[in-house]
Amino acid sequence: MDIAAYMSEVGQQARAAATLVARSTTAVRNKALLATAEMLDQSRSELVAANAKDLQKGRENGLDDAMLDRLELTPQRIDTMIEGLRQVASLPDPIGEITDMTYRPSGIQVGKMRVPLGVIGIIYESRPNVTVEAASLCLKSGNATILRGGSESINSNQAIAGCIARGLAEAGLPETAVQVVETTDRAAVGELITMPQYVDVIVPRGGKGLIERISNDAKVPVIKHLDGVCHVYVDSHADPEKALSVAVNAKTHRYGTCNTMETLLVDQEIAEDILPLLASAFVEKGVELRGCEQTRAIISAVEATEADWEAEYLAPILAVRVVEGLDGAIEHINQYSSQHTDSIITENYTRARRFLTEVDSSSVMVNASTRFADGFEYGLGAEIGISTDKIHARGPVGLEGLTSQKYVVFGDGHIRN
Amino acid sequence: MDIAAYMSEVGQQARAAATLVARSTTAVRNKALLATAEMLDQSRSELVAANAKDLQKGRENGLDDAMLDRLELTPQRIDTMIEGLRQVASLPDPIGEITDMTYRPSGIQVGKMRVPLGVIGIIYESRPNVTVEAASLCLKSGNATILRGGSESINSNQAIAGCIARGLAEAGLPETAVQVVETTDRAAVGELITMPQYVDVIVPRGGKGLIERISNDAKVPVIKHLDGVCHVYVDSHADPEKALSVAVNAKTHRYGTCNTMETLLVDQEIAEDILPLLASAFVEKGVELRGCEQTRAIISAVEATEADWEAEYLAPILAVRVVEGLDGAIEHINQYSSQHTDSIITENYTRARRFLTEVDSSSVMVNASTRFADGFEYGLGAEIGISTDKIHARGPVGLEGLTSQKYVVFGDGHIRN
Repeated sequence: MDIAAYMSEVGQQARAAATLVARSTTAVRNKALLATAEMLDQSRSELVAANAKDLQKGRENGLDDAMLDRLELTPQRIDTMIEGLRQVASLPDPIGEITDMTYRPSGIQVGKMRVPLGVIGIIYESRPNVTVEAASLCLKSGNATILRGGSESINSNQAIAGCIARGLAEAGLPETAVQVVETTDRAAVGELITMPQYVDVIVPRGGKGLIERISNDAKVPVIKHLDGVCHVYVDSHADPEKALSVAVNAKTHRYGTCNTMETLLVDQEIAEDILPLLASAFVEKGVELRGCEQTRAIISAVEATEADWEAEYLAPILAVRVVEGLDGAIEHINQYSSQHTDSIITENYTRARRFLTEVDSSSVMVNASTRFADGFEYGLGAEIGISTDKIHARGPVGLEGLTSQKYVVFGDGHIRN
Repeated sequence: MDIAAYMSEVGQQARAAATLVARSTTAVRNKALLATAEMLDQSRSELVAANAKDLQKGRENGLDDAMLDRLELTPQRIDTMIEGLRQVASLPDPIGEITDMTYRPSGIQVGKMRVPLGVIGIIYESRPNVTVEAASLCLKSGNATILRGGSESINSNQAIAGCIARGLAEAGLPETAVQVVETTDRAAVGELITMPQYVDVIVPRGGKGLIERISNDAKVPVIKHLDGVCHVYVDSHADPEKALSVAVNAKTHRYGTCNTMETLLVDQEIAEDILPLLASAFVEKGVELRGCEQTRAIISAVEATEADWEAEYLAPILAVRVVEGLDGAIEHINQYSSQHTDSIITENYTRARRFLTEVDSSSVMVNASTRFADGFEYGLGAEIGISTDKIHARGPVGLEGLTSQKYVVFGDGHIRN
């Protein structure tokens, strides 16, 4: 197979389909989403059979239990995909929204219209349900999609792709509006990220290594999500009860998510009072503490090294540092944070305002758990990822992040003087 | 000189300065802009002397008259720079604006805060006044800037940089908030566009060749402006008077601008009636017409080739094509347009709506001259360029295009269930 020729054909088809999807009505796109849900429901046995092949091959290739678990399409996971499609269908259509229409002194009326980006390339790892999640968000927002899943899940992804193709056809949309790359050859990724003539943006979903490689080689803009090294800073003006419940929730609600707190900062003025309370709550939850020297003078903790301030543990481990007030906290965060999500616990108005302004992260919070940094919690309805980039989309990326705005100008024969 | 080490130092200084600029108040940033205006006014003789060196060297190196003209700092151009600084100072500050604050079912309150991008790299060619224009917009929007001008204008740019540095100092801002690269070595550009740790976005200003080279090699997002192949489509339902005045204005108001019409499309239903009127108006203005076969059956014109549909003439030359109604026009535009600006002339409601939706360009217009596609005309107050990209900023880019939005979350001890 000539990978370059194949990907070029996929790209051309996507570009042609994108024009038709962009022109389609809300009702047509919703119909395609609901029809796909129906197809998945009717194809449960085919999906499970295709998935069984992937699982079998995965076991033969020695995938570990965690990988196999992520790969598996259980009946519950198929339910979740179906439910997800229905939810996306029920979201408001972002496309065509016109805002900010104003008359200019010249007499023209100028505003902005929300439009699809065009063709979105999604590169992801083993979870086959991403195929449906990503395709549905791209379709709802009027885009064509090229999906490149992990080679371990190729059979599952192709089976899901079949359902999406039938759903698209039922709504009268081209089947090429959502294409799953049919080869597991790695060269296909290299092509996908270097075809700016066919692909408008790449959204990689996977580990930091994958995303760094893609960003490095891409000739197409990448909406990237690197790591989540999130902080909670307990200020001397914190309400101790709020500090305790927010810090415990931010760390222990789920260990493996990118919005989980990885480092706890405590103002030195209250460290002696509050650190013992925090420590006993964390120890009770089975969290290992790694502290700076001042921390270890107050509570029992493993000695933290420089590497701990940069670590995204994704595990029941927490770095703890005593800092010199708000300035110390901001300095630490702006040095070590991955600019994902950081929260201050304080009752002090001026300190809250300074934290919001001076911490340069995609989500900054006051008296709230970092775990809220999420598309659903923010009311975006869905999320294709959390961007740690600064341009285009920052923080949780929903449908709007898959769109752009063009200018519209209404005149009545107006000419420029 | 070790260029890599030098650029790395420039980058580090910019990153450090960006934090201080981002925290500075509106008043301080405006003071720096007004103080720079004052410094330029006081330094007219130094500016002219530095510019004379560049002009002298340019003549020795055989620059053509057009290049020398662009390079020259006349008293009027110095006035314009000073006036520009005062205008930017008077614009509203985009930074810190909080929008879309809403309560979520969980009880948290979520909104977005507008923040600077950080460090902006500007790469431009011979016009030294770009130094002031670009630096002022970046500073107003809370960013630090690294400017790399053309080697022909190095003395002029350094003299301007000196004024900016004194203006920044007067306002108590670090002089490193605006740095003009001191070397003319081309390797400096290569470093600037591959330092994502220090530079958040690159804005190239110059010819298509420069921009393509930069986009190709950059490891930093680029806000790019390629060419402007703009169209006016005269529909069969057009008001002939509007068609005539808009088409003539779009082509002849200025030949050398990116929002100038390069191809005129005429609906076949009215071609016989309106083409002679249009042709005589253009011939009177001295515009050479290059037409398709159908055009040449009606009016006298040079034979157009495929290359004419893709040409950005920037000259008194116009390509003319007769198309099969709106569908033909949209098809031609989506194939040949550079997605800059396209306009329809029609009195028909449905055709106007379809043109707005189906033409995928950064500005789409009804009954208005393409020459209106401009930051000032759109009310942005100023413009750092016109983006033909789809992500982040599309169309004329003003202060807002140099910013981003982060999420802010207010809670009262809220935790996630």
